Amino acid sequence: MVSQALATTNTRGVHLTVLASHIWTSTDTKWDVMDPMNTITADAVLFAPENPLVFARAGQLDYVTVHYETYGTLNEDKSNAVFICHALTGDAHSGGAGDPRTKTKPGWWHIMIGPGKPVDTDRFFVISPNLLGGCRGTTGPSSINPNTGQSYGLDFPLLDMCDLVTVHQRLMAHLGIERLLAVMGGSLGGMQVLQWALTAPTEMANAIIIAASSRLTTQNIAFSAVAREAIMRDPGFKDGRYIEAGTKPTEGLSVARMMAHLTYMSEDRLGDRFGRNPQNADFTPGFEADFAIESYLRHQAKVFLPRFDALSYLYLTRVMDYFDPFADPDATKLIADNPMPTLVCSFASDWRFSSEQSKVVVAELANAHVEVTYREFQAGVGHDSFLMETRGYTKLVQTFLNRALAEVNK
Amino acid sequence: MVSQALATTNTRGVHLTVLASHIWTSTDTKWDVMDPMNTITADAVLFAPENPLVFARAGQLDYVTVHYETYGTLNEDKSNAVFICHALTGDAHSGGAGDPRTKTKPGWWHIMIGPGKPVDTDRFFVISPNLLGGCRGTTGPSSINPNTGQSYGLDFPLLDMCDLVTVHQRLMAHLGIERLLAVMGGSLGGMQVLQWALTAPTEMANAIIIAASSRLTTQNIAFSAVAREAIMRDPGFKDGRYIEAGTKPTEGLSVARMMAHLTYMSEDRLGDRFGRNPQNADFTPGFEADFAIESYLRHQAKVFLPRFDALSYLYLTRVMDYFDPFADPDATKLIADNPMPTLVCSFASDWRFSSEQSKVVVAELANAHVEVTYREFQAGVGHDSFLMETRGYTKLVQTFLNRALAEVNK
Repeated sequence: MVSQALATTNTRGVHLTVLASHIWTSTDTKWDVMDPMNTITADAVLFAPENPLVFARAGQLDYVTVHYETYGTLNEDKSNAVFICHALTGDAHSGGAGDPRTKTKPGWWHIMIGPGKPVDTDRFFVISPNLLGGCRGTTGPSSINPNTGQSYGLDFPLLDMCDLVTVHQRLMAHLGIERLLAVMGGSLGGMQVLQWALTAPTEMANAIIIAASSRLTTQNIAFSAVAREAIMRDPGFKDGRYIEAGTKPTEGLSVARMMAHLTYMSEDRLGDRFGRNPQNADFTPGFEADFAIESYLRHQAKVFLPRFDALSYLYLTRVMDYFDPFADPDATKLIADNPMPTLVCSFASDWRFSSEQSKVVVAELANAHVEVTYREFQAGVGHDSFLMETRGYTKLVQTFLNRALAEVNK
Repeated sequence: MVSQALATTNTRGVHLTVLASHIWTSTDTKWDVMDPMNTITADAVLFAPENPLVFARAGQLDYVTVHYETYGTLNEDKSNAVFICHALTGDAHSGGAGDPRTKTKPGWWHIMIGPGKPVDTDRFFVISPNLLGGCRGTTGPSSINPNTGQSYGLDFPLLDMCDLVTVHQRLMAHLGIERLLAVMGGSLGGMQVLQWALTAPTEMANAIIIAASSRLTTQNIAFSAVAREAIMRDPGFKDGRYIEAGTKPTEGLSVARMMAHLTYMSEDRLGDRFGRNPQNADFTPGFEADFAIESYLRHQAKVFLPRFDALSYLYLTRVMDYFDPFADPDATKLIADNPMPTLVCSFASDWRFSSEQSKVVVAELANAHVEVTYREFQAGVGHDSFLMETRGYTKLVQTFLNRALAEVNK
């Protein structure tokens, strides 16, 4: 299957590869020869009725489509694959600096992924899917249930972090890879990496967990709870059946995003960037966006709406709330027998996923004799620091991955 | 006028005193002889067409009613009056432990005000109004404009901190008091105290400013902005004409309250109190209040709705956003000539009105040769610490006020 997918590289048009197992791949390569990253954008139906996705808690889905991008080229012995797990509102488009000629936007982790970057697409084969429950191409609660012709809505099964991993594993198999050189992710993505490393440590040679947590604080859960309240109390939410109703919980999702975005930035960063500056030199004080920070928050909501779905917001925040792997006393049993070098990074100004939370991950893994490298960076942006260039941060990831590649080539 | 108001003490029923100036007092004493605080609850029309309230920015109101409570007894030389300024969602009922026999609830600052408390109602005469723009008896944006028979809505003039002080000053005059022994308040209340001390320093012998700020941070403005967005984006808001429309922005106000309440508590306090505890031992995971913290937030919204108004929320947060008295280089001109002993308190765990913000107030006042006592308490609750008993906190206020009383009696 992976050879089929790769065979379509650098061609235009849509390929539908219907396999005997009902698993098919639609590969739409938009990047042509100008793309230095060898990008493939694809949709694969990875679960079908003969082989449905059975959820860890309860429920199953007969069909799951996964949207993903790959960058770079898988080597002969399939030992150079790096798997990217994205955060709550991320998507499959993680890599690359963007190119106005092909109208491609920079990937959300473009500081990390691209030619010559820490995840060097000239040397690594990068797999970057949209996650289960998402709204950026992979099946989620607002997808249409082929069995009913309607959206799943709140009938979509409640997610466990293990379910996200199950789908990632299936994608890995779909691409014909048995062992990943590294799995890496930030925030919710880092939580997925941790779950995967605990569940199936033999599937990855290295793990990179950034600005994540093994157990959200009460405050963190509470912020997500308020965001969900904003969405669910919007009259347009219609008990999650808004697609059929022809409405959208636009205002609630806007408020959720504005509040969340605020918690992803540090107080100092907000002060440095916006201060108490007015949005315009000439304005009448009132209840519009008088201050620059208000205009910025409204802008964040505006650009978020067309690219995100309210039900995905509910499901993907909830999976984080419930994530607490080390509550199971046997959580580290497998990883203790198959430890992989693990890099954990946090940012001092991140008050939503604080360094204290990363240190819990480090302590638990170290107790299981995992070789953990931990570093807290003094980046001042807050949680969103993991998306930005910071002195030493990308360099450390680069060093860690170079060492990983050298070891596998030994 | 004060004698008339006081004359109604310990009687039942409603008194309407129509004065030649159209200023009248309605005194409804509910407390009878069981009340050890000598409570008077009253409404006074303090501004009338002959003498309207002219706002600092723009606009005027022909009528302003102020709802207030008083506790204790004004002494002969009227030198024992302590004026209380409440916070954003407070009201006139600040004092007393409450009494189930008279169905009186504890005052919001009952740790501070009552017989034997720091603001000892056996010795001080306490004046405690609802503020201008409020919704707890004093004229605010949801009050009916007598000139139109409709609510003011967004036609209510935008508030400046000076306007709140103007109304406080008028109440003080109404009660026949020329100089207050002390003015004290927390949060928005502390900001009013600061403005009053800067504007009319001769009107107070002492000032107490708790958990306040002279200039909100960008983050603080941003949180209030999101709260306002939640309210204004609620379809029930109807551009502020919801009273006429027969709707209410209930969901938006709920979300605003839940988010704000969260910012008034520290991460540690939330963790200690709620942790990751489920709300019920037996529940099906989903999107209801699975966690105890979620149930708590919903409860906070529920009890808030009947006692607070969405337009007041807009106006009273906005007056804080714009408050920045020391931006005026002449701000301390008057207070430097008439300095009063000032107590400033902050709480280490308060991340919304941080100690750094109190220290700015301290530095500015000290530069103006005001004798400032500053203390940061290690209370762990967060911003709401100012409402709670903390080792040394109420004691320091008591000591400060006792010294104040002793000095005036010298």
